[in-house]
Amino acid sequence: MTSPIRRIAINTGGGDAPGLNAVIRATVIAANNRGWECYGIRDGFNGILCPERYPDGGVVRLTPERVRGIAHLGGTILGTTNKGNPLHFPKQAPDGTVKEVDRSDDVLAFFAQNGLDALVSVGGDGSLTIANALHQKGLRVVGVPKTIDNDLDKTFTTFGFDTAVAFATECLDRLHSTAESHQRVMVVEVMGRYAGWIALHSGIAGGAHGILIPEIPFDLDRVVAKIKRRDTLGRMYSIVVVAEGAEPVDGHREIVAPAEVGHAERLGGIGERVAKVLQERTGKDARVVVLGHLLRGGSPTSFDRLAALRFGAAAVRALEEGRSGVMVSLAFPNVAYVSLEEVAGRMKAVPMDSDTLQTARDLGICFGD
Amino acid sequence: MTSPIRRIAINTGGGDAPGLNAVIRATVIAANNRGWECYGIRDGFNGILCPERYPDGGVVRLTPERVRGIAHLGGTILGTTNKGNPLHFPKQAPDGTVKEVDRSDDVLAFFAQNGLDALVSVGGDGSLTIANALHQKGLRVVGVPKTIDNDLDKTFTTFGFDTAVAFATECLDRLHSTAESHQRVMVVEVMGRYAGWIALHSGIAGGAHGILIPEIPFDLDRVVAKIKRRDTLGRMYSIVVVAEGAEPVDGHREIVAPAEVGHAERLGGIGERVAKVLQERTGKDARVVVLGHLLRGGSPTSFDRLAALRFGAAAVRALEEGRSGVMVSLAFPNVAYVSLEEVAGRMKAVPMDSDTLQTARDLGICFGD
Amino acid sequence: MTSPIRRIAINTGGGDAPGLNAVIRATVIAANNRGWECYGIRDGFNGILCPERYPDGGVVRLTPERVRGIAHLGGTILGTTNKGNPLHFPKQAPDGTVKEVDRSDDVLAFFAQNGLDALVSVGGDGSLTIANALHQKGLRVVGVPKTIDNDLDKTFTTFGFDTAVAFATECLDRLHSTAESHQRVMVVEVMGRYAGWIALHSGIAGGAHGILIPEIPFDLDRVVAKIKRRDTLGRMYSIVVVAEGAEPVDGHREIVAPAEVGHAERLGGIGERVAKVLQERTGKDARVVVLGHLLRGGSPTSFDRLAALRFGAAAVRALEEGRSGVMVSLAFPNVAYVSLEEVAGRMKAVPMDSDTLQTARDLGICFGD
Amino acid sequence: MTSPIRRIAINTGGGDAPGLNAVIRATVIAANNRGWECYGIRDGFNGILCPERYPDGGVVRLTPERVRGIAHLGGTILGTTNKGNPLHFPKQAPDGTVKEVDRSDDVLAFFAQNGLDALVSVGGDGSLTIANALHQKGLRVVGVPKTIDNDLDKTFTTFGFDTAVAFATECLDRLHSTAESHQRVMVVEVMGRYAGWIALHSGIAGGAHGILIPEIPFDLDRVVAKIKRRDTLGRMYSIVVVAEGAEPVDGHREIVAPAEVGHAERLGGIGERVAKVLQERTGKDARVVVLGHLLRGGSPTSFDRLAALRFGAAAVRALEEGRSGVMVSLAFPNVAYVSLEEVAGRMKAVPMDSDTLQTARDLGICFGD
Repeated sequence: MTSPIRRIAINTGGGDAPGLNAVIRATVIAANNRGWECYGIRDGFNGILCPERYPDGGVVRLTPERVRGIAHLGGTILGTTNKGNPLHFPKQAPDGTVKEVDRSDDVLAFFAQNGLDALVSVGGDGSLTIANALHQKGLRVVGVPKTIDNDLDKTFTTFGFDTAVAFATECLDRLHSTAESHQRVMVVEVMGRYAGWIALHSGIAGGAHGILIPEIPFDLDRVVAKIKRRDTLGRMYSIVVVAEGAEPVDGHREIVAPAEVGHAERLGGIGERVAKVLQERTGKDARVVVLGHLLRGGSPTSFDRLAALRFGAAAVRALEEGRSGVMVSLAFPNVAYVSLEEVAGRMKAVPMDSDTLQTARDLGICFGD
Repeated sequence: MTSPIRRIAINTGGGDAPGLNAVIRATVIAANNRGWECYGIRDGFNGILCPERYPDGGVVRLTPERVRGIAHLGGTILGTTNKGNPLHFPKQAPDGTVKEVDRSDDVLAFFAQNGLDALVSVGGDGSLTIANALHQKGLRVVGVPKTIDNDLDKTFTTFGFDTAVAFATECLDRLHSTAESHQRVMVVEVMGRYAGWIALHSGIAGGAHGILIPEIPFDLDRVVAKIKRRDTLGRMYSIVVVAEGAEPVDGHREIVAPAEVGHAERLGGIGERVAKVLQERTGKDARVVVLGHLLRGGSPTSFDRLAALRFGAAAVRALEEGRSGVMVSLAFPNVAYVSLEEVAGRMKAVPMDSDTLQTARDLGICFGD
Repeated sequence: MTSPIRRIAINTGGGDAPGLNAVIRATVIAANNRGWECYGIRDGFNGILCPERYPDGGVVRLTPERVRGIAHLGGTILGTTNKGNPLHFPKQAPDGTVKEVDRSDDVLAFFAQNGLDALVSVGGDGSLTIANALHQKGLRVVGVPKTIDNDLDKTFTTFGFDTAVAFATECLDRLHSTAESHQRVMVVEVMGRYAGWIALHSGIAGGAHGILIPEIPFDLDRVVAKIKRRDTLGRMYSIVVVAEGAEPVDGHREIVAPAEVGHAERLGGIGERVAKVLQERTGKDARVVVLGHLLRGGSPTSFDRLAALRFGAAAVRALEEGRSGVMVSLAFPNVAYVSLEEVAGRMKAVPMDSDTLQTARDLGICFGD
Repeated sequence: MTSPIRRIAINTGGGDAPGLNAVIRATVIAANNRGWECYGIRDGFNGILCPERYPDGGVVRLTPERVRGIAHLGGTILGTTNKGNPLHFPKQAPDGTVKEVDRSDDVLAFFAQNGLDALVSVGGDGSLTIANALHQKGLRVVGVPKTIDNDLDKTFTTFGFDTAVAFATECLDRLHSTAESHQRVMVVEVMGRYAGWIALHSGIAGGAHGILIPEIPFDLDRVVAKIKRRDTLGRMYSIVVVAEGAEPVDGHREIVAPAEVGHAERLGGIGERVAKVLQERTGKDARVVVLGHLLRGGSPTSFDRLAALRFGAAAVRALEEGRSGVMVSLAFPNVAYVSLEEVAGRMKAVPMDSDTLQTARDLGICFGD
């Protein structure tokens, strides 16, 4: 486990997040400063497992020159994907049916054959679970947490989250004037399937009047009451932020988009439903804006760039110190390392005793409870 | 008509646009510097026609102090509305039915009774038509053009358009990295019911690969071919900007959202439809983002602030010079005045010989034709 | 100490910082939600101690209406000042000489006479020392930390710092292209008299090649060597960030701006000196940009808005819980309260074992040591 | 002159400006779509005249792939320089003295030897004069105007100017809150040696109270009076924008920085002097901020990107149509072509009858006259 390192690989998996390129850059430069070579795997593990898709190589040399000037760019120069989990890799049988097979040994074999001594794996819960499995099988692996939803446990924050919150807040700023000029209810749907961090932070920073998050089942009649109270005070508009995973309290199932909606759901089922109900029950004109993919892109904020660069450099130091099976974590003021075992499958929801939540309540923001 | 002015009013009508407050500020300050008082009418003409809705007054004094620090704020401190056209004002009969009556005389009477000598009316085609009617009836009126769609004739541009293009371009920038990382087709719907200016300008500036505008009926198979051509060059993602008023060529009516869609249409019927067809025909994952209301809000760009301030100051100078029935127009490098008669009901579409359109074609952007 | 609160005051002292208005807003709204009245003291304590300067009142009622829409605005609606410390207040004797007197009793008397039960005091080290003194004399006081330099101990961060880093990073981004196109050395001076946080964070995020901070005495010959090494690699430009308090190692005193420079020093003495020496010793064209006051203004980032709103709400909760003599502190993930006694006069420098510093070194950034 | 084109070159000269890369991109793509090859000359004409400096080639092939994703980047991938005018090229004699020689024939020879049929030359007044000379000698040349100062005649605007104005305006926005909180006079020096466009546009958009431009000799006592008038109205701060080329009226020569200042002058001689005098004469605390190089960098605004892309595409169309010796010009709503002869050596100052200037006066802004 502690043989000297000469060559490492890095990959990025799961959804796109601002800061991925900064992690890559820091990893490559820090490795190069130690005399190590660094290679990038394309599209998660597909660069290794489906080499035929990559005429120019599924695993590419990353020199300092190759990663110049990328720290402030969104996206990932390596590509990313939600398909191609090596533990459950789709394989077509001769009869045309597709079943999932475990191809983690192919990944290990590739590392061995190419003299790759370790892997820096950047991704969310799914990617870190894979990283842990590879570690269990003997690969040296350090994970870097990535989720713009901020729902990963054991780290105070991840890169990408601040950028998403900043852009959502800017959008809320833009909507205030229009909502006020036209005396409308504006419903803004943001990401957050399992946790309401983006909705909570951007909603407070952007001056929303209601915030609906997965952690707090909502009763829209409370939101309606809030909107009407504002009207009586002469504040004839309201802005409600809704996390995509927010759900009504029992007995209000009509508000949830039915499962069969399919494609349209991607358009923001819950936001649309909430807007419709609020329009009916307040008598006011209500509109919905779905921020969706806009939150994943863009140049990372300086906060996220720094976090991502720190993560990449820390991953290299972790390998240098002989660590494996750990995730780099932000534990203010410094980074720390936590066992991948501890992280996998654990979610970080907004705690009910969070002072941030209390701040929102102190400001009079309605959570529908 | 040329009696000295002591007191003027200003109103804002139609949809919200970044820069309205800058027009108001410039009008108030420039009027004040001439010793005139300035009053603001709330919500189009509703401040005059429905005074009962405004406990604090439907027409309010605007002092320089009142308009301090508002030039960079979105929205309008006066409010705006699409309802309340004095030429067709809704009136409820005793039997409960509603019919439209001409209440322009009530507006004129209000001006006479309150010693208001002139009106600066800021708005789009509808508002300028009203302004012209009031001028015909003897009111001194100067119009200021407002449309973020840039579809007003007789002026090179209006305030709000640059801000909308800038934000749409920023959104396109954000989507590039995500679309590329995930190898997707991204369809971005922007405003532009009758003219494709926002789609054209932001599409070129934001590096879109396809642009669909009302001026050019589109055949999606040409867009599909463009996307496939990009794939063969290894550029596995594409971005298509769609103006909300874009329409397919005859025989492809299935792409248009059916009229009965209603509320959902506000979510961006055409963008959703285009994404669905592109996904089916390219086999690629396609997503839609509807920018809609986000384009109306926000702080105006420096370009729009300057244009708006110039318009407001020019409106006051026009009144000082004894003009009425004119609209302030941007005729580079200076402002000019054009007759409201000439403007009303005229639309400015993207001309087919525009060098901007030619630039897009030179860059290989596909218009579906 | 624990009598019920009905009326509180808030003031802001020291240098301007983005987020002050958000603190004020949260304090006012949270207090109002508890049935308390809130009053704002103008310009530190001057509103109390020099009432003659404020015809409209040196202490003003702050209603929720008064603090609407201010959370995203820079500056402070109350004003701020570095002059007017009540512990050392300037007093003119009959013979014209000025000496400092302790006027803290006047502050306490004002609170007593006006039924003000507590003070929320927002400021840096100086303001918190005053707050502590007032607390010692029996006033209920809660402090809110403010310093864009991030040099206050016992809190992970303060509002304003993220905004300053974000803007400095944006400026570095802008300078890269120009520096590269013209093959120049660009020296960028940022705030940080006693601690190099802004320089360190923005320098890493903005891709600087050298960072000079007060914590690490610098030898410019090392920076010269770094620049020349870049040249040999074909990277013909370099960017060096300098904190205003950075100092050379002993024996290089010629680089420090002489004390008598006075006014010019405000222009950025150290940056100018560093640029001059680098130009002489590298033979390259070197330029200096002093960001100074630009870092203090502007709309707070969403991170700073949220931090400021949390601080304001937490200050009100602290008073509600009967606390006094404490400062609100950010101790991720929640706020905490620390004794003002512990905070006063303590500085937070960049620790030499910080992983952020290590990240910079891993990226090859030169600190001149 | 009208032989078919197969191969063209492009270069960029003079100071850096946001949008240069967009011109390059549009030129390359538009040329490629016509089946032409495109080559880029490094650092003005130095890539041809000093090939020894460029181990990787002073003239490089520009493929569509090479110019992907550069339209929104500041700077120029080709480099630029103010040194290396081929008409006055520095040559070292054997005795060590340097004199200037005309090397334009070397440029023409290079074009002939390498089968380069035409040149797109992007630059300011100096570069366009060179372009014209090369055209006179028989080279096919189309010029593209570049100046962030907006001081080129015969075009309504150039790319880079809008970006510079936007950033200067953002800086003014940031300074308002700080200036107000501290009751200061803030002097902001911006580019504009011969024309005050940036100062005028940003000053109006950014709400400055005074604007000093080269076109209007200033008397600081008038600015002092304006500042004092604001004080009496309770507006205790003022912001004054100064173009670097602004000059006092006769008899106030003490305000101009003496010629011998040299290096310090680059720090903003005139802004510093103006701040010093205003501080002395108003008794208020005055500070200076020099924006300088910050205005040259950064990502171009959507307006500038579009203008630059239109210019690049139009240059290619001009060559296709057989034109030479012309400059592409923005003549709203379309581009036009004007003779380089007409342009060379002509400056566009702010006209005294400009409605923009009149707007500033209507808003009460003081020009010191």
